[in-house]
Amino acid sequence: MLRPYNRKINYYETDKMQVVHHSNYSRYMEEARLDMMVQLGLSYDVLEQMGVVIPVLELHNYYLKSMTYGDEIDIFCKIIKLTPVRFTVRYEMMRHGTDEMIHRAETSHAFVDTNFMPMNLKKHYPDVYKKFSENLVKIRDDDND
Amino acid sequence: MLRPYNRKINYYETDKMQVVHHSNYSRYMEEARLDMMVQLGLSYDVLEQMGVVIPVLELHNYYLKSMTYGDEIDIFCKIIKLTPVRFTVRYEMMRHGTDEMIHRAETSHAFVDTNFMPMNLKKHYPDVYKKFSENLVKIRDDDND
Amino acid sequence: MLRPYNRKINYYETDKMQVVHHSNYSRYMEEARLDMMVQLGLSYDVLEQMGVVIPVLELHNYYLKSMTYGDEIDIFCKIIKLTPVRFTVRYEMMRHGTDEMIHRAETSHAFVDTNFMPMNLKKHYPDVYKKFSENLVKIRDDDND
Amino acid sequence: MLRPYNRKINYYETDKMQVVHHSNYSRYMEEARLDMMVQLGLSYDVLEQMGVVIPVLELHNYYLKSMTYGDEIDIFCKIIKLTPVRFTVRYEMMRHGTDEMIHRAETSHAFVDTNFMPMNLKKHYPDVYKKFSENLVKIRDDDND
Repeated sequence: MLRPYNRKINYYETDKMQVVHHSNYSRYMEEARLDMMVQLGLSYDVLEQMGVVIPVLELHNYYLKSMTYGDEIDIFCKIIKLTPVRFTVRYEMMRHGTDEMIHRAETSHAFVDTNFMPMNLKKHYPDVYKKFSENLVKIRDDDND
Repeated sequence: MLRPYNRKINYYETDKMQVVHHSNYSRYMEEARLDMMVQLGLSYDVLEQMGVVIPVLELHNYYLKSMTYGDEIDIFCKIIKLTPVRFTVRYEMMRHGTDEMIHRAETSHAFVDTNFMPMNLKKHYPDVYKKFSENLVKIRDDDND
Repeated sequence: MLRPYNRKINYYETDKMQVVHHSNYSRYMEEARLDMMVQLGLSYDVLEQMGVVIPVLELHNYYLKSMTYGDEIDIFCKIIKLTPVRFTVRYEMMRHGTDEMIHRAETSHAFVDTNFMPMNLKKHYPDVYKKFSENLVKIRDDDND
Repeated sequence: MLRPYNRKINYYETDKMQVVHHSNYSRYMEEARLDMMVQLGLSYDVLEQMGVVIPVLELHNYYLKSMTYGDEIDIFCKIIKLTPVRFTVRYEMMRHGTDEMIHRAETSHAFVDTNFMPMNLKKHYPDVYKKFSENLVKIRDDDND
């Protein structure tokens, strides 16, 4: 079982509206995704050294509640789609220790080489692909993303 | 006719992948949207002083090409949906002076008061709402956003 | 005794030079300073609610070693100067669990009210001032800051 | 004569204090410094392609006035120290079109190669060094930086 990613909100992440600026959520998602990958044995600094680069193709954010300095969150993420050349991660951000959802998001990513050319991960790094596929979570497709 | 928003990429917006970090695109969109609003006579600092706050509800980003320090972009944006309580903006980011599209995006926003309670803009600020509505652009709904 | 502030480097904090962008260090210092204040019973969100605002007056950064994604740091900070209207914090950033110093810094701050007018903290909030003064660390002034 | 660097403040650069977060000033300085270098024929993306990397060694910021969204600034910068292996830039940030100083700063930089090893710029790239030296501005050393 994956441990959620825990995070406190930093003061510098707030804006004049007194709440977290919306651009920071994609940074929290990146932190959670890379932490999930470490937990799966897919540490991104190691993948980069192997020549596997994973840029973002799409980013979808749904802002449900605002947050501010002093707040604490848990991010639950899971791989919901996987092909040999790309994958999708879904995120749920909860107020720490509660079932109050603050944000949900999805990101899609490509596997590319260091020249940003598409890479068939299954073919070139079957062991890495296997770890991704073992952690693919089947979801019902009744969500409006 | 609205003037597109012109922007050079800053060095500090790049990351270890040698390209602009994906979280910065929503900042470029904000710059372009607020510039559009200035052009429409809807300067956001004035709206805030009137008590109209416009948080982001949804953000959808489609990353088509990467960019890096030294690049220059033009962002074309338009209001594509409007109700008395919310609106949606669509963005197309082009390499400066070309028809090479680098990114497209959509953001949805609520009108709220300083306590983040929903506000009926048409009712409370009919003149402001009128400016929004005069600049609503009808689009065919054949896009997959 | 104060606990140092522990932090992992985020991917989005790196730049094209493959290392952490220098502007992020002042954000790490803020995180460490606000964490120190929580430990001292001076939680900054509580101070703000009391009307005590603490802007930065000066910031001095000395970059000794570079860092990148995957690195982990401990930040040790202490209050080295205090008057009724301002204070100074010194920071030492170490590679986690080692005595390898990566960065050192100092920040100076004013106590002001919500209109940014100078506030005599000792006079207006003697209990808060007392907590600051009890944690003032005498240093020999042989440092070149 | 060098043209100052002109900049409008972005909304996302403000924080809960309603003003620009202090960490952003070093980003404005970087923008101004790289713009100055373009004006001097020392475009940083070209230098990087030549293998010349210019990290920050020291950063000193003096915050005089606060700024917020809607403000516009001009940054005047000049090279005030130069040796074959490093240089220092001084910055004055003025409210646009006025003589109201908002901020002053200094940054020191090393010339290094792509492995971050010190580089003698005068020896390896005498033409580049010459451009730096032709733009060195003599200052009286009565400043307290």
